[in-house]
Amino acid sequence: MERKTLLTDCPDAQGLIATITNICYKHQLNIIHNREYVDNVTGQFYMRTELEGIFNDHTLLLDLDHALPPGSQRQLISSRRKRVVIMVTKESHCLGDILMKAYDGSLEIDIAAVVGNYDKLQHLTERFDIPFHYVSHEGLSREEHEQAMLKAIQSHQPDYIILAKYMRVLTPDFVAQYPHRIINIHHSFLPAFIGARPYHQAFERGVKIIGATAHFVTNDLDEGPIIGQDVIHVDHSFSAQDMAKAGRDVEKSVLSQAIESVTEDRVFVHGNKTVIL
Amino acid sequence: MERKTLLTDCPDAQGLIATITNICYKHQLNIIHNREYVDNVTGQFYMRTELEGIFNDHTLLLDLDHALPPGSQRQLISSRRKRVVIMVTKESHCLGDILMKAYDGSLEIDIAAVVGNYDKLQHLTERFDIPFHYVSHEGLSREEHEQAMLKAIQSHQPDYIILAKYMRVLTPDFVAQYPHRIINIHHSFLPAFIGARPYHQAFERGVKIIGATAHFVTNDLDEGPIIGQDVIHVDHSFSAQDMAKAGRDVEKSVLSQAIESVTEDRVFVHGNKTVIL
Amino acid sequence: MERKTLLTDCPDAQGLIATITNICYKHQLNIIHNREYVDNVTGQFYMRTELEGIFNDHTLLLDLDHALPPGSQRQLISSRRKRVVIMVTKESHCLGDILMKAYDGSLEIDIAAVVGNYDKLQHLTERFDIPFHYVSHEGLSREEHEQAMLKAIQSHQPDYIILAKYMRVLTPDFVAQYPHRIINIHHSFLPAFIGARPYHQAFERGVKIIGATAHFVTNDLDEGPIIGQDVIHVDHSFSAQDMAKAGRDVEKSVLSQAIESVTEDRVFVHGNKTVIL
Amino acid sequence: MERKTLLTDCPDAQGLIATITNICYKHQLNIIHNREYVDNVTGQFYMRTELEGIFNDHTLLLDLDHALPPGSQRQLISSRRKRVVIMVTKESHCLGDILMKAYDGSLEIDIAAVVGNYDKLQHLTERFDIPFHYVSHEGLSREEHEQAMLKAIQSHQPDYIILAKYMRVLTPDFVAQYPHRIINIHHSFLPAFIGARPYHQAFERGVKIIGATAHFVTNDLDEGPIIGQDVIHVDHSFSAQDMAKAGRDVEKSVLSQAIESVTEDRVFVHGNKTVIL
Repeated sequence: MERKTLLTDCPDAQGLIATITNICYKHQLNIIHNREYVDNVTGQFYMRTELEGIFNDHTLLLDLDHALPPGSQRQLISSRRKRVVIMVTKESHCLGDILMKAYDGSLEIDIAAVVGNYDKLQHLTERFDIPFHYVSHEGLSREEHEQAMLKAIQSHQPDYIILAKYMRVLTPDFVAQYPHRIINIHHSFLPAFIGARPYHQAFERGVKIIGATAHFVTNDLDEGPIIGQDVIHVDHSFSAQDMAKAGRDVEKSVLSQAIESVTEDRVFVHGNKTVIL
Repeated sequence: MERKTLLTDCPDAQGLIATITNICYKHQLNIIHNREYVDNVTGQFYMRTELEGIFNDHTLLLDLDHALPPGSQRQLISSRRKRVVIMVTKESHCLGDILMKAYDGSLEIDIAAVVGNYDKLQHLTERFDIPFHYVSHEGLSREEHEQAMLKAIQSHQPDYIILAKYMRVLTPDFVAQYPHRIINIHHSFLPAFIGARPYHQAFERGVKIIGATAHFVTNDLDEGPIIGQDVIHVDHSFSAQDMAKAGRDVEKSVLSQAIESVTEDRVFVHGNKTVIL
Repeated sequence: MERKTLLTDCPDAQGLIATITNICYKHQLNIIHNREYVDNVTGQFYMRTELEGIFNDHTLLLDLDHALPPGSQRQLISSRRKRVVIMVTKESHCLGDILMKAYDGSLEIDIAAVVGNYDKLQHLTERFDIPFHYVSHEGLSREEHEQAMLKAIQSHQPDYIILAKYMRVLTPDFVAQYPHRIINIHHSFLPAFIGARPYHQAFERGVKIIGATAHFVTNDLDEGPIIGQDVIHVDHSFSAQDMAKAGRDVEKSVLSQAIESVTEDRVFVHGNKTVIL
Repeated sequence: MERKTLLTDCPDAQGLIATITNICYKHQLNIIHNREYVDNVTGQFYMRTELEGIFNDHTLLLDLDHALPPGSQRQLISSRRKRVVIMVTKESHCLGDILMKAYDGSLEIDIAAVVGNYDKLQHLTERFDIPFHYVSHEGLSREEHEQAMLKAIQSHQPDYIILAKYMRVLTPDFVAQYPHRIINIHHSFLPAFIGARPYHQAFERGVKIIGATAHFVTNDLDEGPIIGQDVIHVDHSFSAQDMAKAGRDVEKSVLSQAIESVTEDRVFVHGNKTVIL
């Protein structure tokens, strides 16, 4: 008995749930969990079905292809753990949280490597027996640095790249290598405080909440599809530094929740939005 | 085109989703929303399906009865607004919140009447053009009083009874008239602080959170199936009175959320627990 | 025995708490609650002191004026209930919440009147025996309409004006009449989604939280000092209309919390920020 | 210039704030932060004052002793980092969180050692260069085991002991060694689900929230003064194991927040309650 996840993303039509669940039933696959959603604005249908049984992937997908409307996408995913590479700069809290959660099983991922443009987090990473690649940007052009980073990353063949407070903007060339597979944590409740120093912006504005946003990286800075967001309350007594310190916990929880959703194959991307089933 | 909700509650078996959605498809009913859940401990399957189309209730239910396993329960519910009667004593905040939310459409219910063992809330009720029955308990035995309350309630043929801070314990005879149809709000995060004066109990214990619990009323005081719960943070500076005042908002939101879930036919009861789809 | 609140807002200096509390002590006034705050960036000191005793306002303030540094502001406020006028357009939920909370004592304010540019909420207002002024903007210039609104408002001599979903922008002339005395509720977590139709903007961006912000009105649209903010979680299934409906509760709670803070004399304004003690 | 914290805990009397702040002023000490609280039920006054300047501890305390009412307690605490020893059994998440937060400076404590009755967490502890004492309880009486634990702990002279999911009940003899200095995390919102297996109890009851409580350890199991509490929402789909997994985050945040409050000298204990300033 195996477990796999079937993802369907297609134009809405009558009887889709019946069609898909029937095919699964005929294949003697048991449905463990099922969620579906129809976006009434775009007319798109999304379904995520966790299946258990003995799989004949080829005929199952063939049956689906015959039954689903034109323009449908479907994927049958083995529920193996995902491989990730983490990119960092100097701040340790997000990296530390992911390392610890992978260590104790709270996050069911394999961290293939950590890549940093500073070596500050090398020691922490290696305490968890994970390789750290130090790729300094000093003396390199942006493109040269990214090529060096990419080389280090690609050697690990990651499913996803996690920017755990990586403080440099990625070029379109880099992003194009991993479409909807790079997850960033931005330290504000987007779309407020896009760009640099969001806590300073928040302090200047006198807000009473600060937050964090996990999103897929696209070519528009801090404009990619949002995966998760949360906030905490602050008051007048918080300096920008206090906000940054208080914000660590919400950055960590939003990022690790997003990693969990993505690596459990729950996140569909449509245009600039996510559907999470 | 009509909308109805199909509720299925049956022993789990392979192919149930396919079976049910196929029957809906053959009846040319469109699935607007669908949620299902299998309780792996009890082996029970729950499914809530919002359907749109032209209904032949009789043949649809017949088809389901032929297809579902023995011991199945299924209901096809017209999505009309539910009628409720609200029971109160003296505190106005929960009643006021429900009156206002029904008034502005936030709660899609019809309040048939309010019944109180004091007349303190009569004026507020009548401001909203809703009949108020004042049934004093003075000089009556518990049974006599309940019979008088029941008489007032039954004349309105409610789908549900809402105890909006009704401060008397109901007898088994009363409860038996409305099984899983009486919703109470208790002002603590049950099972902590069962019974009288929970805010005083909370104050004595020195807790840092206070809460509220909405539950169906059964014969065991404050032990019925929980529909919803929430808490707010308090600190050392809160007296029991401060807690009671601060708790109003969470009592209101928990109760009105529970009313919404129940009157939208989202709540299944199994043993002493609820499944909310 | 009376209760009054002393507010001090002055340049920071050594010994200010000792100085102020000494003067109170010499006046045989008992300190019921005290909070102070120093803004280390601006070097400003804020203190709010609830006092109980027999007051000689004149000599108390004279003593303070002698002792406090140049440029100090101090106010001794009788703890009487504040008078408010509420401005509305068509949406009932914020008005209804304030009416009910004033009715049951959760908000200790006197609602002198409600003024609307539509008459849709007249009936609701009058159910609570509060006068409603219907001042249509039809056929009037913005200035003419505001003059008519102002006339209706001024006749009630309010301490504060509450914009409970009043959907027109106020002119600088209007705002100048009530500096830091007009409280608005904006249905987004500012500074995100300034201006019109914030829920539509939120829907387009695909955010996972929506929120509300209470702020003092200044001449910069949605840019005034923030009093309070909160958010709720949403997901992909929320249309803009669903967000608007779900947002009602957070709009209500943020606005009523802000009204409570302001009318309890807890809110200091400095530049574009608030200090809430 | 040094920083110290003055804690005052005494019967309430008129002029206490003036008295204490005056003495500080005469000593030319600047007040950085100040919070005070009067418990009107017990008539007790609490004040926490962060001071900056050049301290003459002896005369400062002498001045305070002359001025404060009989039965007063006052402490002048150098703001050095506190030393803690952490006691563990097998679960890593709370320990891992504290290790990481101490590592990155989020918690300003020195972890002198970790002591476990299993050796499962030895490797994790040593990754952070912190000594681990493995003191198995096998073959030892409860008293013998505690004596061995105590011996390991006392050699590190901790200010506080943190039970980071230490799953054995401590005897009165042990507790008496560290009165109000042992902090436990219990995985329920106390007073609900005291004792063993709270997540199983929560599952059986069908609650919609689960929580965690940090408290000082006394001789009454799970009955000591509560320092902090929080909850998260769950639904019908959570097994007891799911609750345990989901509860990890709230256990971590409640425990680390409690450690921060206690080690920053913010927590007063009075009877079975805490005052946190």
